[in-house]
Amino acid sequence: MVSFTTDYGLADGFVAACHGVILRAVPTARILDITHLVPAGDVRRAATVLAQTVPALPPAAVHLAVVDPGVGTARRALALRAAHGWLVGPDNGLLIAAADRLGGIVAAVVLPVAPDVPATFHGRDVFAPAAAALLGGRALPDLGEPCDPATLVRLPPAYARLGSAGGLDAEVVLVDGFGNVQLAAEGGCLAEAGLVPGTRALLRRLPAGRTPRTGPAPSTSGQRLSEAGRLVAVGTTFGSVPSGEVLVYVDAAAMVAIALRDGDAASRLALVPGDRLALRPLGPPDL
Amino acid sequence: MVSFTTDYGLADGFVAACHGVILRAVPTARILDITHLVPAGDVRRAATVLAQTVPALPPAAVHLAVVDPGVGTARRALALRAAHGWLVGPDNGLLIAAADRLGGIVAAVVLPVAPDVPATFHGRDVFAPAAAALLGGRALPDLGEPCDPATLVRLPPAYARLGSAGGLDAEVVLVDGFGNVQLAAEGGCLAEAGLVPGTRALLRRLPAGRTPRTGPAPSTSGQRLSEAGRLVAVGTTFGSVPSGEVLVYVDAAAMVAIALRDGDAASRLALVPGDRLALRPLGPPDL
Amino acid sequence: MVSFTTDYGLADGFVAACHGVILRAVPTARILDITHLVPAGDVRRAATVLAQTVPALPPAAVHLAVVDPGVGTARRALALRAAHGWLVGPDNGLLIAAADRLGGIVAAVVLPVAPDVPATFHGRDVFAPAAAALLGGRALPDLGEPCDPATLVRLPPAYARLGSAGGLDAEVVLVDGFGNVQLAAEGGCLAEAGLVPGTRALLRRLPAGRTPRTGPAPSTSGQRLSEAGRLVAVGTTFGSVPSGEVLVYVDAAAMVAIALRDGDAASRLALVPGDRLALRPLGPPDL
Repeated sequence: MVSFTTDYGLADGFVAACHGVILRAVPTARILDITHLVPAGDVRRAATVLAQTVPALPPAAVHLAVVDPGVGTARRALALRAAHGWLVGPDNGLLIAAADRLGGIVAAVVLPVAPDVPATFHGRDVFAPAAAALLGGRALPDLGEPCDPATLVRLPPAYARLGSAGGLDAEVVLVDGFGNVQLAAEGGCLAEAGLVPGTRALLRRLPAGRTPRTGPAPSTSGQRLSEAGRLVAVGTTFGSVPSGEVLVYVDAAAMVAIALRDGDAASRLALVPGDRLALRPLGPPDL
Repeated sequence: MVSFTTDYGLADGFVAACHGVILRAVPTARILDITHLVPAGDVRRAATVLAQTVPALPPAAVHLAVVDPGVGTARRALALRAAHGWLVGPDNGLLIAAADRLGGIVAAVVLPVAPDVPATFHGRDVFAPAAAALLGGRALPDLGEPCDPATLVRLPPAYARLGSAGGLDAEVVLVDGFGNVQLAAEGGCLAEAGLVPGTRALLRRLPAGRTPRTGPAPSTSGQRLSEAGRLVAVGTTFGSVPSGEVLVYVDAAAMVAIALRDGDAASRLALVPGDRLALRPLGPPDL
Repeated sequence: MVSFTTDYGLADGFVAACHGVILRAVPTARILDITHLVPAGDVRRAATVLAQTVPALPPAAVHLAVVDPGVGTARRALALRAAHGWLVGPDNGLLIAAADRLGGIVAAVVLPVAPDVPATFHGRDVFAPAAAALLGGRALPDLGEPCDPATLVRLPPAYARLGSAGGLDAEVVLVDGFGNVQLAAEGGCLAEAGLVPGTRALLRRLPAGRTPRTGPAPSTSGQRLSEAGRLVAVGTTFGSVPSGEVLVYVDAAAMVAIALRDGDAASRLALVPGDRLALRPLGPPDL
């Protein structure tokens, strides 16, 4: 099986062309589209979505991912073998987090780029053929020159810090289609920070950090979360709070997240990836 | 075969994760995506689209549908056997109309929810595994506790009424991507209401009824349909009228519908699901 | 294999209904969705995307394409045999360019439309059954009345002209999801026009021609390309120029195109299909 993640959109024939290349090479291939609606060039978002989706996919799959603003430049084209599967895509950090979820990188090769291929569609002309070759049983070393995994480009880590006196500071890493806001903190941090379901917390915005923002400008129709902050509930699911209330919880990717019951938390609070937030425990609501 | 309908959107990995869960359990599964662009939480729209699509799908399929604003609360998780297929999804009315199209509910079970599954992604953790089990040949009673179909949550019926002196009053139930506006009246009502292709009708807005609105606020770029109304043509297809004219017809789901030739009727007339309309026959255009 | 291209959108069940019809007839069918996000009724865009995608798809496929504003009128329904595959869709010009890419039309038949099928969804009721029949091994002449390929409706050709003293005038034919702007000129024209990678060119807007515009009104957030024009670079890929610079290049469909590095050229320059542009060579940047 091949999973497939890009920023190609669904309005052109780019995704289908890559499917076609794989199916010409391996007519029995199964291709599972993860998403093709990554904002153009948003490598970090694609890396996060891919890493959080691969654990649910069949084992021993080839994961093809192409969000590649440097296509046609000197950036390297990669195929990786992880402990549990293969990954193919550009050397810009896109594949690393998913490789970690698949048990870590075991081997890496740099894919050759023939001089006569167009310089703007390596998804079709370089990466999909490599994914098809792996699916068809070719060994990784046959696909290119070996390279040291330590030389691969990595994205800067997202910011997260547990407070010494309780509480948690963390960067927004992902806003999903419902407007749920995922932070760069594993679910276990919630208890460590003293944030227990059934209690309340103070959620406030921290001054901007050094992490560059990506993603669209936030809608301003809501009450933008301020540095003074607001009271929120700690819970386990959207129905833990009344409609219209803000909730802190551990999401289905086992990360700390913020939601708005029956609404869009990111839009309401004007939160985008890269924003830094602080959560401080306040105890049960009747205190 | 599994059909799959959600409000998950296509920009995250949620749909792929459910595909992955099914394919891990049944590697030969075919999954046919109906739509994942149901507006967040719009159970009525999802139920209508699902019911109008299942008749075209292969028989003996499992229909997985997850539009589930109550995920993680006390709402029940269901698997149903209909006369011609199975349905899996939350107990919030989503599955009922489709089950009716598939010959009616024969048996129902409540799916157990393990206490350790995340409370926010039952699509991946509860419903997809149940659909895969049915696809893999498990019998419905093996999946959960039997329950009485009469106890299932049902959506309130949409409003439709034939006039005693001809004409038809009905609620908007569905606006499609072209802006065609489907009413809660079966196609046969058109003739019963005296609305015959080649004649004209008066279309007007009725005062708001008790049916709660769903869906986005209407665009106001058009001439909002008023309670005084406007003349429209009764026809059989978009080409029955000149470009820019409004048409009443029986749509491909065999329901009464309103279209704008070469345009978007819902946007032009500012119609959204829940709006109530009246159609009155006026006879041939030369009267 | 069946490829499938429409303007049905992804929010309704229309695409799935057609998949279902094909799978009921040929349970082992593979269906490759090219795109269903063609703007409603935009036959030219669909024809261009289809023609540029089919070369990457497996040979001997059936290409089902339905962008059909004339559904239910006297327009003919077609099935075509090309040298390398089959095409099914309405007789409105949609299939011709793809048939040319597949080696040219060898035979054509007009599909019968049963009087009892709804007049608004020939995708489900006329075209998908014909595609399934071809996929299932039915011969083209069994599907309908033969017709002379010379009688098929064709779209007017897009405007392109090489200047006698160098340079190129051409119409915009396609804007992709990244905002890259494809012109109606094959890649070889770039060298013929004296536009060599590493040099500069003057890009300017020509007065509107007779080709009718399609597509959405352009965003006006950018510096609209004027008839006075602006300097652009000639290159081979987005990375050939600094971020924010405009680039003329040969795209992956082997056509002349205009891009904005790390941005959306169509939006920035306010270009839509049908606009006419002139490119004049200016020589290397240090002249």
